[in-house]
Amino acid sequence: MRLITLTTDFGLKDPFVASMKGVILSINPNVDIVDISHEISPQDILEAAFVLASSWRYFPSETIHVAVVDPGVGSSRRPILFYAGKHYFVGPDNGIFTFIYNDQKVESVIHATSCYYFRETVDTTFHGRDIFAPIAAWLSKGIAPDKLGEPIENPVRLPIPSPKIMGDNLLEGEVIYIDRFGNIMTNITKRNLEQFSEDIKIVIKNKEISGIVDFYAEGEGRGASALINSSGYLEIFIYRGNAKDSLGINIGEKVYLRI
Amino acid sequence: MRLITLTTDFGLKDPFVASMKGVILSINPNVDIVDISHEISPQDILEAAFVLASSWRYFPSETIHVAVVDPGVGSSRRPILFYAGKHYFVGPDNGIFTFIYNDQKVESVIHATSCYYFRETVDTTFHGRDIFAPIAAWLSKGIAPDKLGEPIENPVRLPIPSPKIMGDNLLEGEVIYIDRFGNIMTNITKRNLEQFSEDIKIVIKNKEISGIVDFYAEGEGRGASALINSSGYLEIFIYRGNAKDSLGINIGEKVYLRI
Amino acid sequence: MRLITLTTDFGLKDPFVASMKGVILSINPNVDIVDISHEISPQDILEAAFVLASSWRYFPSETIHVAVVDPGVGSSRRPILFYAGKHYFVGPDNGIFTFIYNDQKVESVIHATSCYYFRETVDTTFHGRDIFAPIAAWLSKGIAPDKLGEPIENPVRLPIPSPKIMGDNLLEGEVIYIDRFGNIMTNITKRNLEQFSEDIKIVIKNKEISGIVDFYAEGEGRGASALINSSGYLEIFIYRGNAKDSLGINIGEKVYLRI
Repeated sequence: MRLITLTTDFGLKDPFVASMKGVILSINPNVDIVDISHEISPQDILEAAFVLASSWRYFPSETIHVAVVDPGVGSSRRPILFYAGKHYFVGPDNGIFTFIYNDQKVESVIHATSCYYFRETVDTTFHGRDIFAPIAAWLSKGIAPDKLGEPIENPVRLPIPSPKIMGDNLLEGEVIYIDRFGNIMTNITKRNLEQFSEDIKIVIKNKEISGIVDFYAEGEGRGASALINSSGYLEIFIYRGNAKDSLGINIGEKVYLRI
Repeated sequence: MRLITLTTDFGLKDPFVASMKGVILSINPNVDIVDISHEISPQDILEAAFVLASSWRYFPSETIHVAVVDPGVGSSRRPILFYAGKHYFVGPDNGIFTFIYNDQKVESVIHATSCYYFRETVDTTFHGRDIFAPIAAWLSKGIAPDKLGEPIENPVRLPIPSPKIMGDNLLEGEVIYIDRFGNIMTNITKRNLEQFSEDIKIVIKNKEISGIVDFYAEGEGRGASALINSSGYLEIFIYRGNAKDSLGINIGEKVYLRI
Repeated sequence: MRLITLTTDFGLKDPFVASMKGVILSINPNVDIVDISHEISPQDILEAAFVLASSWRYFPSETIHVAVVDPGVGSSRRPILFYAGKHYFVGPDNGIFTFIYNDQKVESVIHATSCYYFRETVDTTFHGRDIFAPIAAWLSKGIAPDKLGEPIENPVRLPIPSPKIMGDNLLEGEVIYIDRFGNIMTNITKRNLEQFSEDIKIVIKNKEISGIVDFYAEGEGRGASALINSSGYLEIFIYRGNAKDSLGINIGEKVYLRI
């Protein structure tokens, strides 16, 4: 039994996700399909990249991850696939796999050109159904990636914002994701924090955060607090509250660490 | 391994969908269940009909499709099932299968009356759980449709709006679906377009659309554009924008094609 | 093939649910995972308790139900599991299983302490992924509950509001759940109603409800109506309307039954 995961911006109302699943199960009925997310903000490639990067490693080896946030569908942007970290990845060459390229050794990225493995007719507006779903299904049946096309050298990478050292006493990071609870995730890592002394001040939107705790309930009655979250990043939260709404924070907001 | 799909207006928060799945898996643990959509607008039978019509054909032959948007539950409206296009369909007789009747040869529509195949107690408010889920599960175990009830002659059909020819130079269609991206789908088909000359003007809400392109990215910088979408219908969109919100369009809005 | 269900407040956009599923499938690839709900209101333990209580019994015997609404994650609140009604339950000891304790004979509640069955590193902010998912996966592989920890005597129970008899002629209940359709579910049961005469008046927010019907369509043209819903509770609804919005009702609103 092989696993295929799906990450898209298709939402859960429209027939798009079901069409992809139908195509996959028509080619390989013995596959298990798991949704990672279909609620990616429309056309937000970086958000999809991040959600996939935060979850793929928890799946078993040889899982096939399909990611389709694809505003360039039908244009000259290439459909690609590759094997990295013992998992397979399938999707458009638009930077959606940037975190995987940055974290893992990638043997070779294949430009999918063998239309034998596509649906018989390929629509210019829905490669999720007509190219990526069938490729994933064929991979799950054991077809080798290099049967599906030609290796390329230069897959598209998105610029991922990294924290900047602004002097001995100051690090500038930024907000990269906000979850359902309104918890504000920054690009500052546990490792970044360890390089600082223990007497750290966190400032966001001119507001000083009261300190770093170990778990959410420790922030009770303290207003905006911070912790290292389950992905290893510095996160600002309000216990049983919504930090995003209370502080008025959006993606890209700067966060400062001072001694 | 048999497949059952579900299309409902139950949403994903409440316990309704899970109850249906539990009932199915209690009768046949060896079935795979795939959600088509549970986010159909409450009581919108036509929307459910459309979403089902747009996705069922991508599933393998012998898939069983359960559709439950059912404001008449508990009244005299009949529970039905039938086999068409090599797939099974189960749901209320309220027009939810109109597109299937229109597109496919249907051998016979069965009014499900054999309560042996229902849950032991049938609640007047939840036939999804007590009638349709068990019927689908029994079909997946190989029970023949005609064991489940009596054939009927006159299943309910909804009026489906068709484009109207308003003269040699004018076709009047209307908006029949709007997707998550705000893309506006009309009832004008690829075939309708081919009957016109190539010099087509599209007008919606007194606004002329700039032309028909082949894929979304081709609409970059052009404002509202049109293409033939992946279901074969004329669709109005704004590249990386939301045409519904920008143009203020809702279901039912008229669309005109002029030479 | 064993079944695991998930009930959480993680939503469907973020990577949390997928991470749990990946962990489960990495330990036991031969398990089927069914979502009960991930749209529980953030931190609303009682709502999760209610949704789980409304659906678990429809699943096959030996199903493993994981429920994670867990504001106390990482604090001293205990991870627990138990067997009741021929099903397994896994989650935080915060009252999320109160309805199960009240309805079913529970042999013994186990405080999960055997970290051998947790993920190798347990993050203080995500026990869903690092403790509850792996425990469920190990249970699905046949590990006995008492291998996972020590029995405890006093699991946390939430106060569940019961209807109050206010005299021979008056019963005071309250709204305990509102579904996607805006249907208003009260804590007044079918049994409560049977103890009254047939000439019942229902009052909510000073508005008298026009009577108790058998199914939704019977409420056509009658405004706010009531029926006994598919879970056995008195429910106030408006046919093809939204009673919650029309009447301005929220959870906790009092409902009165008078003769």
